[in-house]
Amino acid sequence: MTMTSPTLMLACDLISRPSVTPEDAGCQDLIAARLERLGFRIEPMRFGEVSNLWARRGDAGPLLCFAGHTDVVPTGPLADWASDPFVPTIRAGQLFGRGAADMKGSIAAMVTAVESFVAQHPDHQGSIAFLITSDEEGPSVDGTVKVVERLQQRGERIDYALVGEPSSRARLGDSIKNGRRGSLSGWLRIHGKQGHVAYPQLAKNPFHASAEALAALCAEVWDEGNDYFPPTSFQIANLSMGTGADNVIPGHLEAQFNLRFSTELDPAAIKARVQGILDKGDFDYEIRWRLSGSPFVTPVGRLVEAVRGAIQDATGIETELSTAGGTSDGRFIAPMGAQVVELGPINATIHQVNECVGVDELVQLSRIYERTLEELLTKDERGRAPQTRVRDSPKPNSSS
Amino acid sequence: MTMTSPTLMLACDLISRPSVTPEDAGCQDLIAARLERLGFRIEPMRFGEVSNLWARRGDAGPLLCFAGHTDVVPTGPLADWASDPFVPTIRAGQLFGRGAADMKGSIAAMVTAVESFVAQHPDHQGSIAFLITSDEEGPSVDGTVKVVERLQQRGERIDYALVGEPSSRARLGDSIKNGRRGSLSGWLRIHGKQGHVAYPQLAKNPFHASAEALAALCAEVWDEGNDYFPPTSFQIANLSMGTGADNVIPGHLEAQFNLRFSTELDPAAIKARVQGILDKGDFDYEIRWRLSGSPFVTPVGRLVEAVRGAIQDATGIETELSTAGGTSDGRFIAPMGAQVVELGPINATIHQVNECVGVDELVQLSRIYERTLEELLTKDERGRAPQTRVRDSPKPNSSS
Repeated sequence: MTMTSPTLMLACDLISRPSVTPEDAGCQDLIAARLERLGFRIEPMRFGEVSNLWARRGDAGPLLCFAGHTDVVPTGPLADWASDPFVPTIRAGQLFGRGAADMKGSIAAMVTAVESFVAQHPDHQGSIAFLITSDEEGPSVDGTVKVVERLQQRGERIDYALVGEPSSRARLGDSIKNGRRGSLSGWLRIHGKQGHVAYPQLAKNPFHASAEALAALCAEVWDEGNDYFPPTSFQIANLSMGTGADNVIPGHLEAQFNLRFSTELDPAAIKARVQGILDKGDFDYEIRWRLSGSPFVTPVGRLVEAVRGAIQDATGIETELSTAGGTSDGRFIAPMGAQVVELGPINATIHQVNECVGVDELVQLSRIYERTLEELLTKDERGRAPQTRVRDSPKPNSSS
Repeated sequence: MTMTSPTLMLACDLISRPSVTPEDAGCQDLIAARLERLGFRIEPMRFGEVSNLWARRGDAGPLLCFAGHTDVVPTGPLADWASDPFVPTIRAGQLFGRGAADMKGSIAAMVTAVESFVAQHPDHQGSIAFLITSDEEGPSVDGTVKVVERLQQRGERIDYALVGEPSSRARLGDSIKNGRRGSLSGWLRIHGKQGHVAYPQLAKNPFHASAEALAALCAEVWDEGNDYFPPTSFQIANLSMGTGADNVIPGHLEAQFNLRFSTELDPAAIKARVQGILDKGDFDYEIRWRLSGSPFVTPVGRLVEAVRGAIQDATGIETELSTAGGTSDGRFIAPMGAQVVELGPINATIHQVNECVGVDELVQLSRIYERTLEELLTKDERGRAPQTRVRDSPKPNSSS
């Protein structure tokens, strides 16, 4: 059965389009054509070089949005692939190709899940949407964040977002992400005074001056984490000092560090603590900061429960909540007030050569997405007043 | 008078020969010709690309050796020089040119001092020698160290060495070096485990693991120095970690450090202490060591007293003993059991553009060298048994 599953067929169609960031290579047209047939209003949103697709079926709330990206990371050395990364190939029950797991397989499963769901529930509650970008693996500047901006400008709000990022570790559905840590980077420049190693009294070694402070930064316990987050971590990723000459005390030290932080902390608090530790030392410094993402979390509630139940139904697995790992476009959607969960295939091969996804995994994933739709858009939504619904989901502008 | 001084004339002749390491450019031939006329036995010693000159007058002890180098450091940007660095030029009482202060001026002063001394004391006590190399500013592998080896092989020993390095700070003779610190370098590689900054528990940051140990090395008090040496110093000159990527915990850290150490410590003791500090940390590491020079000191005695007196006579200055600064070829001569003192012009412009030496300074320096010869080779040498003298100074092989 799986060999002819519509999810597998669509995944193959998508993989055969070489959509390395920011290229979409026609993937979104393919998706849009399928959704249009189901009654979705199609709204392409191009920003700069990036193709984005917003598609919505229904006007009522709640709005459940499937979010994902058609772009893929580069293939790396072609010679290392067992088969052409843009020629979908099935071997030993696995579909190979760049994007198979991250995340063309998920997008195919989303589309077929919606097709099956709409066929059975043409008059479902609320609305269904797709937010697809071709700039998730790249700078993420003209992608999801811009679409969200436009939606917010016109008062259109996502209630539930299901992001197709490959969240599973060993078996499909064993882990979902209900949040992500924040990511804050700093570029630290410590000033010393250059000189000859034979005359240290005439120079100031920037590492000697700051070694204790740097060690204190490394040893700092930033927080204990909380129910959803591991403790905040601090890592120095790059450190450099010196000209190469072995007899010169260098004038500067450069350190670049990154914090992955929980919802217990905010950037201002972190900056103050980093500076407080550095200020104890007898040296001058500068720091340049960059916030790549604020932490967000979707506490256990309607979306998490629906996804958990769907996974249990489709696979028998008790899923685990996680906020670990890198960033995803979920960080741009959560600030709208949306509940956000990431659920997708096993991530063992992503960004590697011979990326693959299980053929059966695709079928199961489509089933999980469909069960989630049934859970959220066909059952009574207990505990939320109809009044709230009306205010939260104004009619979108018609633009297709 | 100074405008026509023989020291100035010889210094000009030497500067006009562009002898950038390891080139000698005919300087040693010029010196040898002058010394041969005084009855020196001339012995060129070429090793590899390096020209060396050994010249000796007399067979008896004690042997007073003038040591120096004809090679100079590169000029740097010619446009930054007020006059051609290889065209000796006098302006405002200063002789400009590459090597003027380091150390063609000193060599000229040594030669004219000996000429004057021999004219007045043709039958002086002991012997006079010159040990001149063209590889002091370079690797120092085929220079003084090789000449000393050959002298030792044939049982020829230097009792007193006067090295012409520019030892003076503000006025000629205000400082002489009666020793140098040792120099020991280490290349430290600390092993961690590479990983993603988002998953620190799966990686091991080599800086985080070693930060406390590195800070402890920087804070360590190695010794208190002694009568002749400042405290031993430790300096990290180069530090590097990271690939440039801001999301990768690097697998290794590299640090290069240097110790300038007093006679209170030896390399084995230093290595043991560095390793003892590192071993307290929970990380693996490797160190590659290089000893550039062992510390040496010439305590106050016959040579120091003679030089002090000569400076006092010629300039009225009370000289100061110092062991600070970089290395010099004195480190190769001291292990023979020689007393070694460095005495030369003001070092303010050495290794810089517009290097210069005072025209009067050259005349005075020649006078100081000559007074030192008189002190050591014409007066009774109290407190040393004639017997020792005979054993210390066997007849050299005749080879010129």
